[in-house]
Amino acid sequence: MNFKPLGNRILAKIPEEKKQTSSGIFLPDNASKEKPTQAEVVAVSCSCEDIKVGDIVVYAKYAGTSLTLDDVDYLVLDTEKDILGVITK
Amino acid sequence: MNFKPLGNRILAKIPEEKKQTSSGIFLPDNASKEKPTQAEVVAVSCSCEDIKVGDIVVYAKYAGTSLTLDDVDYLVLDTEKDILGVITK
Amino acid sequence: MNFKPLGNRILAKIPEEKKQTSSGIFLPDNASKEKPTQAEVVAVSCSCEDIKVGDIVVYAKYAGTSLTLDDVDYLVLDTEKDILGVITK
Amino acid sequence: MNFKPLGNRILAKIPEEKKQTSSGIFLPDNASKEKPTQAEVVAVSCSCEDIKVGDIVVYAKYAGTSLTLDDVDYLVLDTEKDILGVITK
Amino acid sequence: MNFKPLGNRILAKIPEEKKQTSSGIFLPDNASKEKPTQAEVVAVSCSCEDIKVGDIVVYAKYAGTSLTLDDVDYLVLDTEKDILGVITK
Amino acid sequence: MNFKPLGNRILAKIPEEKKQTSSGIFLPDNASKEKPTQAEVVAVSCSCEDIKVGDIVVYAKYAGTSLTLDDVDYLVLDTEKDILGVITK
Amino acid sequence: MNFKPLGNRILAKIPEEKKQTSSGIFLPDNASKEKPTQAEVVAVSCSCEDIKVGDIVVYAKYAGTSLTLDDVDYLVLDTEKDILGVITK
Repeated sequence: MNFKPLGNRILAKIPEEKKQTSSGIFLPDNASKEKPTQAEVVAVSCSCEDIKVGDIVVYAKYAGTSLTLDDVDYLVLDTEKDILGVITK
Repeated sequence: MNFKPLGNRILAKIPEEKKQTSSGIFLPDNASKEKPTQAEVVAVSCSCEDIKVGDIVVYAKYAGTSLTLDDVDYLVLDTEKDILGVITK
Repeated sequence: MNFKPLGNRILAKIPEEKKQTSSGIFLPDNASKEKPTQAEVVAVSCSCEDIKVGDIVVYAKYAGTSLTLDDVDYLVLDTEKDILGVITK
Repeated sequence: MNFKPLGNRILAKIPEEKKQTSSGIFLPDNASKEKPTQAEVVAVSCSCEDIKVGDIVVYAKYAGTSLTLDDVDYLVLDTEKDILGVITK
Repeated sequence: MNFKPLGNRILAKIPEEKKQTSSGIFLPDNASKEKPTQAEVVAVSCSCEDIKVGDIVVYAKYAGTSLTLDDVDYLVLDTEKDILGVITK
Repeated sequence: MNFKPLGNRILAKIPEEKKQTSSGIFLPDNASKEKPTQAEVVAVSCSCEDIKVGDIVVYAKYAGTSLTLDDVDYLVLDTEKDILGVITK
Repeated sequence: MNFKPLGNRILAKIPEEKKQTSSGIFLPDNASKEKPTQAEVVAVSCSCEDIKVGDIVVYAKYAGTSLTLDDVDYLVLDTEKDILGVITK
């Protein structure tokens, strides 16, 4: 990945068509369609202390700005406004 | 539960179809339907001092963001904006 | 009463169908219908210094959030925004 | 008078049907109908330094919250937002 | 004049039907009708350092609150928001 | 010029019907019609450090307040909100 | 280039009709049409530390103010609000 977020932003990868994330958490159907959804953090700005690369974050529906890099869909999220919490292992 | 709220947020479990919470407080019908409602706190961010896990919080109607984890419905609430107070025992 | 308000909020009991409050102040008809109204404070958060339990507060019309606890109607009011002043004895 | 304003508020008595205030200032007709109007301060919160009981304040039209106490019409005004200035003797 | 503005406000006298102010500046027709206009300062609050009584201020169109005192039309202007600058001699 | 802007404002002269500013910069047709435009600074308030009299500033379209002094059209611009940058020589 | 941005702004050159930026990053079709887009920084204000001339910035769609200088199309972007991140090499 060659993208560095600025400010309080992170870059997160939106999981596609799978019911289970890379950390093994089961995502029920309605969670990814009608509820706040989850994404894996792939890049953080220096100023974000609570969130690390690899974390699964839960964000509010319609939050963030979508971004396509090398044909992969990402979401740029504000850690203060957009992200509700982190899935812990 | 494997969810850690960020910022001033808490995670609360919405009681379903019952008239009495786990701490024995009776909820009248109209309270859960047309008035600010109550929920049990299941996770707090580190920065919340007034609210602990297990507390019954009263929140303003339509406040917070709903979230489904492992088929259970939760509500992510902002402790400053959304929560009006705590039911004390 | 088993409710502790958070932040700058207080819990106030709305007087019903009476023309005189518990402290003896006469409420004219139009005051409770078309003007800012009055309520008796039954719980305050720790951070409220100007308002004590038992005070009669005057609040702006439509201010606050209504709340029903044990079949009694209350109003959760913000001491900075919603409350105009206190009736002194 | 038994009302103590909170915050930056004052309580002012709206003059009724008279062309001259108690301090002898003549109010032209159109001033009280279509222009910012004047009222006599009857109570101030502790934190108001510029305005004293007895002052005649000029406030912006439609400013403040009306309040009826003991059948007398008052206006609760914010000293920073609502009051334009003070009539000096 | 017996009016003391509060906060960052000044009291200014709106010139009537004349093309030239008291300090000799010519006001073209369209300036007073369709453009930001000019007025002479007659009272300032203590906290205004940039503007003195007697200054001609240029204010944005529709800015301020009009006020009639002793049959004379004035304008109460906020020195930070409403006043664009001062005509210097 | 006898105008002193207040706060963060400057006074700028809008070039009329010319394709070249006094400092020799060519203005293409569409720049002055459909894009953010340019003006020459003729007066600054004391608190503006980045902009000097004689600078050509680029401002956002529709920004500022127009002002006519001695039949010349000017624009009062806020240095923080309205001005995008300065044309350097 | 003879433009110095003020405040937190930068000046960026919008790439035209090319699928590859000067630093070799491939831009898929839909990225430049329907997604947040990328531009090369050509001038920064002194106060921007995170962004240097030559960087490729990713900005939110519809962000910034377009500006034409010497027939070249640029975009003036706010580094805090408009720019999501920087493409790193």
